[in-house]
Amino acid sequence: MSGKFIVVEGLEGAGKSSVIALVEQAVKSKGFTTVTTREPGGTPMAEAIRNCVKQNWQENVVEETELMLMYAARAQLLANVIKPAMDAGSWVIGDRHDLSSQAYQGGGREIAQATLSALSDITLKGFKPDLTLYLDVEPAVGLERARGRGELDRIELAGLGFFERTRARYLQLAAADSSIITIDAMQPMADVHRDVQRTLEQYLSC
Amino acid sequence: MSGKFIVVEGLEGAGKSSVIALVEQAVKSKGFTTVTTREPGGTPMAEAIRNCVKQNWQENVVEETELMLMYAARAQLLANVIKPAMDAGSWVIGDRHDLSSQAYQGGGREIAQATLSALSDITLKGFKPDLTLYLDVEPAVGLERARGRGELDRIELAGLGFFERTRARYLQLAAADSSIITIDAMQPMADVHRDVQRTLEQYLSC
Repeated sequence: MSGKFIVVEGLEGAGKSSVIALVEQAVKSKGFTTVTTREPGGTPMAEAIRNCVKQNWQENVVEETELMLMYAARAQLLANVIKPAMDAGSWVIGDRHDLSSQAYQGGGREIAQATLSALSDITLKGFKPDLTLYLDVEPAVGLERARGRGELDRIELAGLGFFERTRARYLQLAAADSSIITIDAMQPMADVHRDVQRTLEQYLSC
Repeated sequence: MSGKFIVVEGLEGAGKSSVIALVEQAVKSKGFTTVTTREPGGTPMAEAIRNCVKQNWQENVVEETELMLMYAARAQLLANVIKPAMDAGSWVIGDRHDLSSQAYQGGGREIAQATLSALSDITLKGFKPDLTLYLDVEPAVGLERARGRGELDRIELAGLGFFERTRARYLQLAAADSSIITIDAMQPMADVHRDVQRTLEQYLSC
């Protein structure tokens, strides 16, 4: 039996890491093996592409360049990690996936939907996660938490307006897709975890 | 007055380097400044992407990944080198450009035309070279010359059928576009250079 693909999404500082650990634990407790991924990255080539995207280049980074690199990394991860793991019956838990590109590059950078759709089609050919947990947080709250962890990278330095647009797109896409569950990540951690647990129990009992 | 973009194309071992030097000399002799580029590459970020494409990865490299990386590098070169140079009145002489992706990935790797067109549109938005010199050589002849230069990279190791398909696509595209001039590069070098000179004289006198 083929495994499932569960993705955790959200702005910087939304608390993805601890939720991913929670999802992993819940899936394992049902007797499934798990594989965790992060995007961009997750294979040697995809990690090299990630380094390329994340560097603070002295040159102008064209928006379409960033987008194509994200999808190039995604294509490697999908073919070499996500699909083989699912085919082998493992459940894959993803730290970000296509929804991040839709939100950050489509919403934040305001890249045309036609461009995003073209790249998504080329790369994913209709593949999508079984369940996505979107951890919703106000940018100011999330960035404050992220700053506590250390230096911000090129994308994280893009400014508050960028993150406001990204969040708005996340909320819009989550509202339109029943496989994306929005979790209020501005609550105390214990309440966030309780909401995640409830969503997972419902999903895993189906 | 805005400069022009002249591209030299062809299979490995077609003799691009010496023809590029010839084009540079001819354009300079008309009093224009020149900028030479190579693809993929030509900016620090694009060269990092080039290294990523050219490496012999232990993992499967998805065809679409390769293609998106090529276009990502092209987007950087176009925005940061080709267009600014042309705007400043320089003539840009390119060692490969979009036609290489059309021929190698479209012809050689048999990637769907819709995929190539989508990426080309996203990256170039209608931009195209003023003149392309396609140096036509049989793959067996070109690869024999290339082998003389040292190790072949991942793409060059793809096999003869790949290069036959690439050449066929080059010839097909050149036949359909009057801005692409096919030069018989299997002639002795002096004759190749004579044909290039004639083409350039005709172009530069217009």
